[in-house]
Amino acid sequence: MFKKILVANRGEIAVRIIRACREMNISTVAVYSEADKYSLHTQLADEAICIGPAASKDSYLNIENIISAAVITGAEAIHPGFGFLSENSKFARICNECNIAFIGPSDKSMELMGNKSEARKMMKKAGVPIVPGTEGTLNNIKDAVITAKEIGYPVMIKASAGGGGRGIRIVFSESELENAFNTAASEAESCFGDGSLYMEKYIQEPHHIEIQILADKYGNAVYLGERDCSIQRRNQKVLEEAPSALIDEKLREEMGNVAVRAAKSVNYENAGTIEFLVDKDLNYYFMEMNTRIQVEHGITELVTGIDIVKEQIKIASGEPLKYQQSDIVIKGHAIECRINAEDPENNFKPSPGTITEINIPGGPGIRMDSSIYQGYTVPPYYDSMLAKIMAYGENREEAIARMKRALYELIIEGPKNNIEFQYDILENEEFVKGNYNTSFLKDKMVK
Amino acid sequence: MFKKILVANRGEIAVRIIRACREMNISTVAVYSEADKYSLHTQLADEAICIGPAASKDSYLNIENIISAAVITGAEAIHPGFGFLSENSKFARICNECNIAFIGPSDKSMELMGNKSEARKMMKKAGVPIVPGTEGTLNNIKDAVITAKEIGYPVMIKASAGGGGRGIRIVFSESELENAFNTAASEAESCFGDGSLYMEKYIQEPHHIEIQILADKYGNAVYLGERDCSIQRRNQKVLEEAPSALIDEKLREEMGNVAVRAAKSVNYENAGTIEFLVDKDLNYYFMEMNTRIQVEHGITELVTGIDIVKEQIKIASGEPLKYQQSDIVIKGHAIECRINAEDPENNFKPSPGTITEINIPGGPGIRMDSSIYQGYTVPPYYDSMLAKIMAYGENREEAIARMKRALYELIIEGPKNNIEFQYDILENEEFVKGNYNTSFLKDKMVK
Repeated sequence: MFKKILVANRGEIAVRIIRACREMNISTVAVYSEADKYSLHTQLADEAICIGPAASKDSYLNIENIISAAVITGAEAIHPGFGFLSENSKFARICNECNIAFIGPSDKSMELMGNKSEARKMMKKAGVPIVPGTEGTLNNIKDAVITAKEIGYPVMIKASAGGGGRGIRIVFSESELENAFNTAASEAESCFGDGSLYMEKYIQEPHHIEIQILADKYGNAVYLGERDCSIQRRNQKVLEEAPSALIDEKLREEMGNVAVRAAKSVNYENAGTIEFLVDKDLNYYFMEMNTRIQVEHGITELVTGIDIVKEQIKIASGEPLKYQQSDIVIKGHAIECRINAEDPENNFKPSPGTITEINIPGGPGIRMDSSIYQGYTVPPYYDSMLAKIMAYGENREEAIARMKRALYELIIEGPKNNIEFQYDILENEEFVKGNYNTSFLKDKMVK
Repeated sequence: MFKKILVANRGEIAVRIIRACREMNISTVAVYSEADKYSLHTQLADEAICIGPAASKDSYLNIENIISAAVITGAEAIHPGFGFLSENSKFARICNECNIAFIGPSDKSMELMGNKSEARKMMKKAGVPIVPGTEGTLNNIKDAVITAKEIGYPVMIKASAGGGGRGIRIVFSESELENAFNTAASEAESCFGDGSLYMEKYIQEPHHIEIQILADKYGNAVYLGERDCSIQRRNQKVLEEAPSALIDEKLREEMGNVAVRAAKSVNYENAGTIEFLVDKDLNYYFMEMNTRIQVEHGITELVTGIDIVKEQIKIASGEPLKYQQSDIVIKGHAIECRINAEDPENNFKPSPGTITEINIPGGPGIRMDSSIYQGYTVPPYYDSMLAKIMAYGENREEAIARMKRALYELIIEGPKNNIEFQYDILENEEFVKGNYNTSFLKDKMVK
């Protein structure tokens, strides 16, 4: 086992990793930007090294400085957390070249999964369902008609050069197709100077369901059930739960096995997440693989009892998985609310600043992962997440009740925050019924 | 179900009960002494009523004022917590007479279990093992010889009028008996003016093991496994764990069944705890029953997933138990450390005062039950417990590692406290091996 690990991240995930290390009796090296001198991760680690100015590109994305910090302190491994360099295959490669273990997959599997269209091809080959669509672009309206018939309506026509929702048309039947094709092409032409289009099946009322997997260096892999991350605002997850109210035992097993197959097809090792879109008829389609720890890993820990960060470290150090699939038991229900320094009344504008008062909820079933404390100043340079609050209960109803109770107790004075917004989600009748998909926030919550 | 509950207590247990009520959508009334105006329980409840001056006898023990508060606010039930009026059968009776549900057992079973010698007789009748000993006093040395033979050596000779360890002799064989009898009798005579003696089996290397039970109004009862509370200082529990390293599956089941039988023999309802002494050969003997929630109930919640305070409320409101014994599964391991405002360097002298800085640990497996916050002033009038910190892990090793990690993170500035003392216990080799009994602190830790 490693004796010393450098944590190449900041904020609560850095604290989370330091906690795992301390429990495993591994020394830790924190790295910090000039803006993070008084951060909790800087204070909790055994050593702390400044790696540059506030701007991420000069510090938390500065490969050279981070590697130097590891070399100077004699760290044998680097945990990248999420964001920053965590999915940078070049960084993983350099770590390995410097004889520092990268706590994550090989740079090769990371690269394979990082290229979205390559990943799609590979998954298709491995028998993982992907959203049906054209491989290349549509040549003309005739081609579109044939393809749409193959895929099945409804379909989406998208600009190849697209972005921001421009050049997109949803088509429910052949009679609408020609018109949609022409207007999308001309919109694409005028917006992007490129009228070429491709076609994808339109997923109705999609859920974002992701499967957590663990894989070791010896070809062993297990899935730890799913998380439902459909509560999103502009593709940013806001609230997550495990298990999903949508998924039954049979589908869990099927998707779990598919996720394990996907991971194995790229010789994946360490923790990873396969993200799927699930439609209202419970068809599921591969979206992408996140080759790192996820923000929302804690709710899986709560329902499985497995410490995923410790498993990451063990796997990277060469230990074989000690779990078989039959050892993984999902018990109870867990919800996570991301508490952000942002102003829901003002289009969720980030709201950095000094925390003048704080009350942290406790008691049964509540877990708080954060790096804030009374007197801490939230810097404006990084993402606005202040804390992850997790509630565990015997069942979904108890988890919701506990989360509401915890949000009631939670006080963060200073930066504006989304505590009340989260509370409102938990009070929403449709949410309480488990009746929601990825458009829930847009449709039901955000005026 | 009740719509409103009055919590007749203060500090963390009052907060704990308010949390359960909030999760069950039940309104709460806090009562507080003049010294507790700014207490967290006063702030978290939906209503708060001052019931008198700081001294407990004028406030938290003032039955009249508490009942009045319940009547004024229309509370349908009272939860007494632990300590104060929680084992006062007169209070329970008055509640019932006032048509207020007392969340606990009937005043009758409370009274039966409250009288220690009566309880002993009743338990013997119910087939619950009790520490073997004389029913009355020893008439003379001959009587002592015969009784000792029956009981089996070693035995303890105790002054009937005794206390404070005076007039006690431990006798390992018959050859020592006469001398011990005579000196104990004369010591008893000179200390208490009463030379009469009785005899009990001397329990060697005793463990304090207690079984948590739940019983409803309809004769259904289950046990939730045991807690090992052998880490004590002057009969005050300091650190508890569940399950006990001493108890195997078979003994757990046996003691659990005995505990359920004990409870049923007094028509017990609600949550209760049967305390046993367990000797080094794993013989167990009934000590007493606590007819209330225990301080250390949380570790049982962590290993069973059952919210005991909610169950108390459900039982009192007339709901039948929803668990059968086969539903109760003990999973993982939990430890509790009691964090007190006391000075371990100065004979554990209480150390009230203002908390000038606080850092509360979080992350996986950590639960903190407390009523403190930055700026809170710990009053000198009540017991010195500041917080209960609990750690849960896959196994004992992980629970210990997590507790150490949490204690490392926990900062309480202002009142002196026992955080370091607790850390030292967790580092002790014998503790780590699970090799300890009730004399551990005296023998190994306290200079």
